[in-house]
Amino acid sequence: MSRSFDPNEGGEFQSPALERLVRSLSRLPGLGRKSATRIGLHLIDQKSVAEELLLSAAEAGQKVTNCSNCGAITEPDPCRICCNDRRNPTQLCIVATPVDVLPFEKAGFFSGRYFVLGGLLSPLDGVRSEDLPFQKLARRIEDDRVTEVIIALDASVEGETTALYVQRMLEGSDINMTRLATGIPVGGALAYIDEVTLQRAFQGRRSF
Amino acid sequence: MSRSFDPNEGGEFQSPALERLVRSLSRLPGLGRKSATRIGLHLIDQKSVAEELLLSAAEAGQKVTNCSNCGAITEPDPCRICCNDRRNPTQLCIVATPVDVLPFEKAGFFSGRYFVLGGLLSPLDGVRSEDLPFQKLARRIEDDRVTEVIIALDASVEGETTALYVQRMLEGSDINMTRLATGIPVGGALAYIDEVTLQRAFQGRRSF
Repeated sequence: MSRSFDPNEGGEFQSPALERLVRSLSRLPGLGRKSATRIGLHLIDQKSVAEELLLSAAEAGQKVTNCSNCGAITEPDPCRICCNDRRNPTQLCIVATPVDVLPFEKAGFFSGRYFVLGGLLSPLDGVRSEDLPFQKLARRIEDDRVTEVIIALDASVEGETTALYVQRMLEGSDINMTRLATGIPVGGALAYIDEVTLQRAFQGRRSF
Repeated sequence: MSRSFDPNEGGEFQSPALERLVRSLSRLPGLGRKSATRIGLHLIDQKSVAEELLLSAAEAGQKVTNCSNCGAITEPDPCRICCNDRRNPTQLCIVATPVDVLPFEKAGFFSGRYFVLGGLLSPLDGVRSEDLPFQKLARRIEDDRVTEVIIALDASVEGETTALYVQRMLEGSDINMTRLATGIPVGGALAYIDEVTLQRAFQGRRSF
């Protein structure tokens, strides 16, 4: 071998390709360098696992889309929820991202439909009302004769701002606008609840 | 939509493709269903991240190989370690898997070379001596005029069995056979050390 190697060329692995794979993996949410290394080496070692993963990721990338009607993650478009006659179209739950639909559907108690905003108003990040589909929301509310709008947005400044915007949009109509209750989570230990949540839970207290 | 949907067809996602992706991901080491879901949704959402990952995984799958001489993970074959004239060929460290080379190289104190067995003897799992490259090891030891063999195998029954096999192989030669010390890890709290390790550390105690 006449070629000399840069000892750092391939990172700790003697392999630039493996180093790149581990770096890509460590950019995924929740994976640090160690877990990414473990997974990268596993993928190199188990070719069949890697091939299955490559196939399923490519397939999901092609097939998975967002419902053109409500914005939820789906393969058929419009999605199963929008096409289901037993789901009440007059009860509309507004969420920020497609992922936010999942906990509702998993719990299975909600029989209305969804509208995914795709973001929250944020003057700091430059997200203004014209960047979010409020016109589409207004049309949807009119077309589906929505009677109740349930706001299920983050309890953050951006979430509050967005909720306020929707509230103003609906002002003058007789649409009932509600939001999810803020309070102690079921099974949550009171001692470890943050002060804001505690105050909100206190403000929202109910009589037995 | 005339087609009716099986509510469980796409798992919790309304999407069989996403469900398959999450299942593939959750088969990776250290990932449960929740982390796999988080990563799967991230990959769907961030197409560029997914594409980079697909590319780097495919590239690594093609380029990364095992050194034909020592078995370490490498791209050039023979590997950088085997080609490095400054690495002492007469000091040979025997490890079970290619991954086991990494901590040595990261620490950087070892200036000898490696031999990856690719497994450990295990009568229970049907791994016999003819399944492991002991003949290649014997040839390597002869060709490189190895004077010290360092056994760096797991402290398991399989590791001990394999170490014993190598020991018998070298019987009659004047090759020095050593093994890594067993003991309390640096920074390890004595109170939480398992009994076997403690006993080994005691047996291996050194005078100041």
